[in-house]
Amino acid sequence: MIYFDNSATTKPYKEVLDSFVKVSTDYFGNPSSLHNIGGQAEKLLSQARKQMAELLHVKQGEVFFTSGGTESNNLAIKGTALMYRNRGRHIITTSVEHPSVREAMEQLKDLGFRITYLPVNYEGRISVDDLEKAICHDTILVSMIHVNNEVGTIQPIEEVGSLLKTFPKILFHVDSVQAVGKIPLEIHKSYIDFCSMSGHKFHGLKGTGILYIRDGVMISPLFSGGNQEWKQRSGTENVAGMVAMAKALRLTLEEREDHLEEMLEMKSMIIDELKAMNDIYVHTPIEHSAPHIINFSIRGIKAEVFVHALEERNIYVSTTSACSSKKKDVSHTLLAMKVSEEIAQSSIRISLSYVNTLEEAKYVIKSIKEVVNYLRGVMK
Amino acid sequence: MIYFDNSATTKPYKEVLDSFVKVSTDYFGNPSSLHNIGGQAEKLLSQARKQMAELLHVKQGEVFFTSGGTESNNLAIKGTALMYRNRGRHIITTSVEHPSVREAMEQLKDLGFRITYLPVNYEGRISVDDLEKAICHDTILVSMIHVNNEVGTIQPIEEVGSLLKTFPKILFHVDSVQAVGKIPLEIHKSYIDFCSMSGHKFHGLKGTGILYIRDGVMISPLFSGGNQEWKQRSGTENVAGMVAMAKALRLTLEEREDHLEEMLEMKSMIIDELKAMNDIYVHTPIEHSAPHIINFSIRGIKAEVFVHALEERNIYVSTTSACSSKKKDVSHTLLAMKVSEEIAQSSIRISLSYVNTLEEAKYVIKSIKEVVNYLRGVMK
Ligand SMILES: Cc1ncc(COP(=O)(O)O)c(C=O)c1O
Ligand SMILES: Cc1ncc(COP(=O)(O)O)c(C=O)c1O
Repeated sequence: MIYFDNSATTKPYKEVLDSFVKVSTDYFGNPSSLHNIGGQAEKLLSQARKQMAELLHVKQGEVFFTSGGTESNNLAIKGTALMYRNRGRHIITTSVEHPSVREAMEQLKDLGFRITYLPVNYEGRISVDDLEKAICHDTILVSMIHVNNEVGTIQPIEEVGSLLKTFPKILFHVDSVQAVGKIPLEIHKSYIDFCSMSGHKFHGLKGTGILYIRDGVMISPLFSGGNQEWKQRSGTENVAGMVAMAKALRLTLEEREDHLEEMLEMKSMIIDELKAMNDIYVHTPIEHSAPHIINFSIRGIKAEVFVHALEERNIYVSTTSACSSKKKDVSHTLLAMKVSEEIAQSSIRISLSYVNTLEEAKYVIKSIKEVVNYLRGVMK
Repeated sequence: MIYFDNSATTKPYKEVLDSFVKVSTDYFGNPSSLHNIGGQAEKLLSQARKQMAELLHVKQGEVFFTSGGTESNNLAIKGTALMYRNRGRHIITTSVEHPSVREAMEQLKDLGFRITYLPVNYEGRISVDDLEKAICHDTILVSMIHVNNEVGTIQPIEEVGSLLKTFPKILFHVDSVQAVGKIPLEIHKSYIDFCSMSGHKFHGLKGTGILYIRDGVMISPLFSGGNQEWKQRSGTENVAGMVAMAKALRLTLEEREDHLEEMLEMKSMIIDELKAMNDIYVHTPIEHSAPHIINFSIRGIKAEVFVHALEERNIYVSTTSACSSKKKDVSHTLLAMKVSEEIAQSSIRISLSYVNTLEEAKYVIKSIKEVVNYLRGVMK
């Protein structure tokens, strides 16, 4: 099996699962309990938080554990909107966000908020000028995806941070779910107030995530209750899951050291070979794109048909993002990049992990060529 | 080790963890993915939902997976408030709720909602008459704990359901986190619209829960995004956690068959022995209480000191609920039951699971007596 759908989800590392089982078995206590069984669980949770903070170069008190990327995005956006609704009701985002940002914004419209969706260029990037022009007197939040989950485009987060530094009343949220472990990010230096991450995208477990919240920033919690996570996110903590996530991130960053070059080589080899083929359009830009995502369309071949044909060769790729892959609607991101609807409908995403190899990439290229030839033959 | 703090959290069954590991390893796909690795994960998720539905005697489409009891409570309450805020802004609950209900209500006050907290009698029970009197023209929700997490009192859920049946515009939420697996509940026959449960309270994993939502009832989601869980709760599903939770509930209900009698015997033995001691007040009522919770105060001995003294004998119990056990504030529930503040401050909770034995209970009783005598001696 060649699994090239790592932006949908990754296979947990064995060591990550081992930690999960060990903690769940030997340290099953509730961190809020007064006795030592609770105390031990609390200690492990603190250690996981400390480890995460070190890996992300932030403070321990800025790491808030959540159930995943969707929760983190909704918490940052709705938590800000509800907390600061009397300060203003205007929010700026982009036209290439993940549904967990886009739909959260749409929900806020119902509560009287105005949303500006910034346009992107043909590479899927916003312009900081456009952002500056969009800022109003009552803008309270800018929310931006870091690495686009469909095409891999990187937004100019640092530049946006520098601009927003001069607007101290505007909070800045970054959805780094696809970026963590792939693209370095200095959260503090980029003046970010919120940053979302999801464990299952870097070989951690599903149901685990992080929201970085800058020291001193308050939000209105989505889950109130027993006041865990400094009152910003109540609920008995998934201690084992968080220990596992911290380990997954550490291992991923180690793997990055050893395998980033190979990943970049795989990416450029695949893109070069695709570009050399007839009627194939590569949507992932050369510059400003993450090392692990390659998005392309094969004119005249339905994405679904192609995914299944590769699957018969034991190769797993995706149509567009996993979330929308079962729905019939066309990629928002590609349409925002002015790709035609017809071409957008044939779009395929390959997404790599550091566990993938050049051998696999070569086999995938060979298979893509054969499948394209075969399908074109059938259709003639 | 004798672990008598099962209302704080339980140790996951070994079989539950085994399932988790198997699913996470062999079926790690994203259920939304088009290919078969996703398809297999989706199939397992559906099976878990089906199993849950059968165990709870509800429809598959009424089982919504969440990250735990706190999420389920917040989702039911805030989701209803935001969805039906134009119909009315009055909500009724009780004065003996878990913080995840109480604090959600307090947050809604800020958004213009009125909250009625029903009083309870000395047993911690509300009266259905009081509830009926509290209903206003603009009441949209009644939210009620099923089994109180501190003293074990059971609320008259069926009667409340029958009353609310005659008010078709009022939704009915039940927090069954402490009840599931202990107290039978016919969700449909009790006209319940929402019912919250949490996996880690019945030997499942932390970070897993359920919100039952009656067929046809709509709420405003807390997490919007990729439209998982019929759009009511987006986010990549924790497939392995949900499979594990379904298994945990099945095993718990099987254990109930075999061990409920023993649990009841333990409970009455402990209560009888405590009542026979001087200056010990048992707060758990004889009637209308769950089989697994025993709450009592020892006059003159601080709860914290007592918990630690038992811990030295390798016995783990709790002060009040785990959530508030580290805070200095006194149990809301006991105060609502008109227990004096002094006595409430000395309250201890024992909470049993079907894995506990009569032998353990006897040893705990003996230890309680020795510790009480010792501490009283020290204080003289
Ligand atoms: C950019 C981006 N944001 C958010 C999410 C949602 O994360 P999760 O799957 O943990 O809910 C995803 C994953 O699909 C994503 O790719
Ligand atoms: C009655 C009750 N409701 C809700 C909760 C919250 O559940 P969880 O710990 O899964 O967030 C608890 C657990 O502490 C509880 O006892």
